[in-house]
Amino acid sequence: MTAAMAVYTEISDGELTRFLAEYDLGAPLSCKGIAEGVENSNFLIRTERGSFILTLYEKRVNERDLPFFIALMEHLAAQGFSCPTPIAGRDGRALRRLCGRPAAVISFLEGLWPREILPFHCAGVGDALARLHAAGAGFPMSRPNDLSLEGWQQLIGATARQADSVAPGLAAELAEEMAALRRAWPQGLPSGICHADMFPDNVFFRDRAVSGVIDFYFACTEAFAYDLAICVNAWCFEPDFSWNPDKGKLLVDAYQAVRPLTPEERHAFPVLARGSALRFLLTRLYDWLNRSAGALVRPKDPLEYLAKLRFHRAAEGAATYGL
Amino acid sequence: MTAAMAVYTEISDGELTRFLAEYDLGAPLSCKGIAEGVENSNFLIRTERGSFILTLYEKRVNERDLPFFIALMEHLAAQGFSCPTPIAGRDGRALRRLCGRPAAVISFLEGLWPREILPFHCAGVGDALARLHAAGAGFPMSRPNDLSLEGWQQLIGATARQADSVAPGLAAELAEEMAALRRAWPQGLPSGICHADMFPDNVFFRDRAVSGVIDFYFACTEAFAYDLAICVNAWCFEPDFSWNPDKGKLLVDAYQAVRPLTPEERHAFPVLARGSALRFLLTRLYDWLNRSAGALVRPKDPLEYLAKLRFHRAAEGAATYGL
Repeated sequence: MTAAMAVYTEISDGELTRFLAEYDLGAPLSCKGIAEGVENSNFLIRTERGSFILTLYEKRVNERDLPFFIALMEHLAAQGFSCPTPIAGRDGRALRRLCGRPAAVISFLEGLWPREILPFHCAGVGDALARLHAAGAGFPMSRPNDLSLEGWQQLIGATARQADSVAPGLAAELAEEMAALRRAWPQGLPSGICHADMFPDNVFFRDRAVSGVIDFYFACTEAFAYDLAICVNAWCFEPDFSWNPDKGKLLVDAYQAVRPLTPEERHAFPVLARGSALRFLLTRLYDWLNRSAGALVRPKDPLEYLAKLRFHRAAEGAATYGL
Repeated sequence: MTAAMAVYTEISDGELTRFLAEYDLGAPLSCKGIAEGVENSNFLIRTERGSFILTLYEKRVNERDLPFFIALMEHLAAQGFSCPTPIAGRDGRALRRLCGRPAAVISFLEGLWPREILPFHCAGVGDALARLHAAGAGFPMSRPNDLSLEGWQQLIGATARQADSVAPGLAAELAEEMAALRRAWPQGLPSGICHADMFPDNVFFRDRAVSGVIDFYFACTEAFAYDLAICVNAWCFEPDFSWNPDKGKLLVDAYQAVRPLTPEERHAFPVLARGSALRFLLTRLYDWLNRSAGALVRPKDPLEYLAKLRFHRAAEGAATYGL
C-alpha cells in the first residue's frame, strides 16, 4: 500500500527556537515533519520537557474556527477524554503564529491507528464516540456544521458539470439524492459536540483499547446520531465496500452501552447514514475533480462513498444497522 | 518556504507489532511517517525502550549495497562518530524485511538540521567531515562511487535530448564540461570512506555544534577531497547561488585542522569542485526531466548547480577556496 502525504510548510531551526522560547518547554531537541493529516502541517517535536505535536494551520482550515477547536480540545481533555491538549505559552495563549500561519503546540498521544479494521476496533470506536459526546456536554461554544445540507448543495453545484466523468449518471444521482435527503432530513434530534471525522487515522489504539482521538478540525454542533453514522460508514465496510453487519452491530452496541439512542434517532438512522455517505462522496468528488498535477496528496476515491450511499439507499430500515 | 516530501510505504499496526517482536525493543507506542528523505520511507517509532527510526528501503537504493551501508554505520558509531546505529534483532541481524521491502531500525539522533546556513554551521560541517574520514579508516568493506565519471557520462546521455529545454545550450555545455573533466580528473589522491551527500538536511546541530550526521546511502570509497568539494558546494553558496568566501574558508580550515590536505589535493580542488557540481547538476537535471505528474517529491532546481559549476569553472585556482 502506498500513501501520499505532505508537509506544506517548512520551519527553520531559528524560527522554531524563537517560537518555543515563548513556552516553558525547554530547547528543541528535534523536529520532524510528519506525514499525517492532509489539511495542516504537523511536526513531531522533542524538547527538554518531552514530545509534542506542533501544528501549522494551512489555508483549508478557517482561522476564525481555531479558537473553537483549541477550546474544545482543552474542554474534552479536562473532562478526562483522551485527546490532544493544547499547550499554552507563558502568556497563557495556546493559539499563536509561526511562519506566517496560525500555530499551536499540542500534547503527543501514544498509540497506533489501525490500517486493517478488526471487530474490536469497531467496539472501541463506538464506545469512544459516545464518551466524546458525553464529554462535550457543558462546552459553552458552538460551531455549525458547514458540511450539512447547504454545504452539500454547494458541492453538488460545484461538481455537477464534471461528475459524470467519474461515474456515468452521477450528477443526476447526486441531485436526486439531495432532493430526497432534503425531504427526509430529521430535525430536533439530540445534538451537541460531534467529532464529524472519526475515521481510522484519527483514532489511536494501544493494547486493543482506544488510547486517544485526534484531529478535531471538523468538530461542530450536530446531531449525535449523524456522528455515529459517519463512524459506521468509516469503520463497518470492508475494503471491497461490502457492509459487515457484525462490525456495524459491535459499533452501535458499544455506543448504546454508554448512550442509548432514542426511538427518533433509530428511526432516522438510515437517512443519516445516507447523508453522511453523501457528505464524504461530495468532498472526495470535489477534491478528485480539482486535483492539480503538482498535488502533494493523492485524492481519495469518491467511488468508495458512492457504493456506501447506494448500500444505505437500498437498506431496509434501522434493523440493517443492528438498531 | 514550502516543501514536498513523501512516505512511500504505509505499515499496518499489525505488521509493525509483528516486526518489532523480533527485537528487544518492547511494544510499539507510536509510529509516525516522517517527511524527510526522498529516497526511502522513514518512520519515527516510539517503543517501550525509547525512540528509533525505522527505514524501509525503496527501489532507488540498490539492495545489494545495504550490507555495506549498515556495516558502515555500525563501524562509524563504534569509532565514536555520531551517526545512526543500526539496531539488531534478537538473531543478531540488523537488515530485515517489512512490507516486502528491506528494512532496518536505527537509533534516533537528536538535533535540528539548519535551514539557514550560518558561518558556524560551515565550521562544524568541515570538522565533522574530517572526523568522518578519520573514523572510516579501518572499515574493511568498499563500495565504488557509481556517481563519478562513468555515471555522469550515462546521465549526460540520458538527458542530452531534453537538456536544452531547461537552459538553452545546456546539452553542449554539459558535453564540453564532461570532456574537460575527463582530461583533468585527478588520480591517486588520498581516499577512503566518503559520505558523498553531506547536505544540510543530513547534518544535525545542537547548541551550535554538530550533534550527528545521517543518511549514509550514497557513502562510497572515494577521494576525500572530492567529499570536501561536495560540502563546499552544499554549504558555502548563498541562496542566490553567490559564493561566500568566508564560509568556504571556515569549512576548509575546520577540515584541515583535523586532516590537512596534501599539495596534490589542494591543486586538484578546483577540478573536484567542478566535478561535484556536475554530479548534482546531472542527477537534478535527470530528476527534473523525468518527474511525473503524480510525483510525491518536487524535484530540486538543477539550475542551482549549473550556477555553481560555472563559478568553479571561472575560479582561479585553489586560493578561491581558501586553500
